Amino acid sequence: MAVGVPKFPVMRAVDGVLLGTYCAQIKQCVRDDLLVVEMDPESTCSAVFTQNAFCAAPVVLAKQNLRKDPRWLVINSGNANAGTGAKGLQDAQSICLTLSQIAGGRMEQVLPFSTGVIGESLPVEKITQALPKAIDNLSEDNWAQAAEAIMTTDTFPKGVSKVVSLDEGSITITGISKGAGMIQPNMATMLSFVATDAKIEDGLLQRCLQHAVEQSFNRITVDGDTSTNDACVLMASGHSDVPELLEGSQSYQHFCDVVNDVFSELAEAIVRDGEGATKLISIVVSQAQNDQEAVRVGKTIAHSPLVKTAFFASDPNWGRILAAVGRAGIEDFALDKVSIFLGEVCVVNSGTKDSQYTEAAGQKVMDAEEITITVCLGRGVAQQTIKTCDLSYDYVRINAEYRT
Amino acid sequence: MAVGVPKFPVMRAVDGVLLGTYCAQIKQCVRDDLLVVEMDPESTCSAVFTQNAFCAAPVVLAKQNLRKDPRWLVINSGNANAGTGAKGLQDAQSICLTLSQIAGGRMEQVLPFSTGVIGESLPVEKITQALPKAIDNLSEDNWAQAAEAIMTTDTFPKGVSKVVSLDEGSITITGISKGAGMIQPNMATMLSFVATDAKIEDGLLQRCLQHAVEQSFNRITVDGDTSTNDACVLMASGHSDVPELLEGSQSYQHFCDVVNDVFSELAEAIVRDGEGATKLISIVVSQAQNDQEAVRVGKTIAHSPLVKTAFFASDPNWGRILAAVGRAGIEDFALDKVSIFLGEVCVVNSGTKDSQYTEAAGQKVMDAEEITITVCLGRGVAQQTIKTCDLSYDYVRINAEYRT
Repeated sequence: MAVGVPKFPVMRAVDGVLLGTYCAQIKQCVRDDLLVVEMDPESTCSAVFTQNAFCAAPVVLAKQNLRKDPRWLVINSGNANAGTGAKGLQDAQSICLTLSQIAGGRMEQVLPFSTGVIGESLPVEKITQALPKAIDNLSEDNWAQAAEAIMTTDTFPKGVSKVVSLDEGSITITGISKGAGMIQPNMATMLSFVATDAKIEDGLLQRCLQHAVEQSFNRITVDGDTSTNDACVLMASGHSDVPELLEGSQSYQHFCDVVNDVFSELAEAIVRDGEGATKLISIVVSQAQNDQEAVRVGKTIAHSPLVKTAFFASDPNWGRILAAVGRAGIEDFALDKVSIFLGEVCVVNSGTKDSQYTEAAGQKVMDAEEITITVCLGRGVAQQTIKTCDLSYDYVRINAEYRT
Repeated sequence: MAVGVPKFPVMRAVDGVLLGTYCAQIKQCVRDDLLVVEMDPESTCSAVFTQNAFCAAPVVLAKQNLRKDPRWLVINSGNANAGTGAKGLQDAQSICLTLSQIAGGRMEQVLPFSTGVIGESLPVEKITQALPKAIDNLSEDNWAQAAEAIMTTDTFPKGVSKVVSLDEGSITITGISKGAGMIQPNMATMLSFVATDAKIEDGLLQRCLQHAVEQSFNRITVDGDTSTNDACVLMASGHSDVPELLEGSQSYQHFCDVVNDVFSELAEAIVRDGEGATKLISIVVSQAQNDQEAVRVGKTIAHSPLVKTAFFASDPNWGRILAAVGRAGIEDFALDKVSIFLGEVCVVNSGTKDSQYTEAAGQKVMDAEEITITVCLGRGVAQQTIKTCDLSYDYVRINAEYRT
């Protein structure tokens, strides 16, 4: 199940970035599960990783190699290589080694990524045997195949492609992401790989990435669990005709805005495909004292199983939203300043049910597949939006059956 | 559904404490939904309440009246009188007034409690009409009826009765509680009413209560949602032959130990009857730097929907437990010191899968209805236990259908 599956877009090639996939049969043999990305030698690369203390072996290695002039990414689905200790690290290293030998680089130039079940050994041989085939397939036009290859419980591939039009020429930004459970990225994200042909120095690219992640992947949650393998990579080949993007320039700002849009669409696609999702819920928290407070209230609502099951039932059970706001741990909280809207319908006014509210009006909003709820705290001017999905029978089924 | 429903015990009467129930037909007319408790004039009384900022109208009033020589409790199920604003407060007051007029006291001597759906007006007239009948029924022997009257989505009544045997005589402690969703008590609890015939001064009784709550109701969670109506009351009639319990005495310590046991059993009964529960999970976190850290790790595991669905499926998916430990936000966390046991079976050793572990051994533990998992952090000597249940289809069903 998924909410309003977006049409997979035309994925513009990014000059200087090649992708190749192959089926290594890690967990299944129906579709490709191995992806190699090759960047031009002059590329810059930035990344953020999971804040989970138990980060997986590939994350440990990718972090180390990020500042060693990376030229290749290798991503497998079907196995997370997490909780695998020293053996897991060796396994990830041997994949990097094999790839670098075939492709003609140093093993430190490879960033490895894995996604799938935690705690099982990576089938290294299957992957190293498939690597030459994936490398043979390298092409600028394989973004759609790449989006499929990184899927796990995702029900649809996720891709976004945009062009930044500037006076000096145009820049392409094309990227993919995958979900679909263990989703509460924390200063990091699920797997997402975005490439651009912009010319941009590493540090500036990293700042652009971090800002975009903060406003996109760090504002979604499916189930409040932060994965051991989250990673988001932004690569820049420098092949565009547009001169180097410099800090403070209008071109850089414009570029960052479009990167933000790409990331936000990729993040929303993950929520639409959240495990068992039947509804896409946008929780707008406004009139907060600061962004942190708004995010805290938004996430408390988004994580409440009672709120999420009410959404699944299309039940305008605003009492559960109110209770979640109340337990968010905001200090000196004045209940009588709180308003809650379902869509445009005011439900709670001054902390209690609005006198004009009718259940029929609330029901009409809740019947839709995509719902916005707005919580006004009456404490300030900060506003943040958290996106999440409902909690359905299928979430339980998918996660109860995951390893069977 | 429920896990290992405990046999409802023989509930010893507490001399000086009377209970009367009646069916006010607040939400249903199959069983009693109104409970009045009358305490002897010399009684002392202590209570803790929800920390949810949106505490319900009866909680506001009960807090105010706790220090005004309370003699009556009035509890209704079927409606929480929460999110009901000024009207809700008036409603709770008018019930206190009616009760005090019939019973012959001041309205400030009544502590009101409500549990049920949030955001709907309390049917005051139904309750005030039923009050005389409930008062007519007052008797020392109505603990079983009382346990039934406070139920909402609970599938079985919860009661515990114990005797403290001291050299000077004996003290009775008898109490009831109710769950079953919106359960993560926070320095408070779901509704629980415990009475004793001990002679004990208010302040000392309050300390005994707070300590017991901290180790019982504050160590359980069903779904991580903290209710707007949580309350726990400990009443002492002073009718026992045992001389007044004094601070620092052995008798007081002994009394507190048995109160702890009563509270722990009532709390565990709530988890056994957690909405949709098919498993009772005890999460022991040991070798923590301090209690707070142990509780934090335990609750992060207990709140993980991925861990909870794996328990529902009897799946020894220890990777999800490891991932939850990793995102608990413990600073300077050394993964390689962590061990995890399912029952007696070591699954994770030094942060990775134990070399002796077999899936069959883990499966055998997980197939049981009651499961203990132990997480050793390797950081210190503190240990705490969190009790929770699994996340099943029925949790979704119960909460999706709650208002229909």
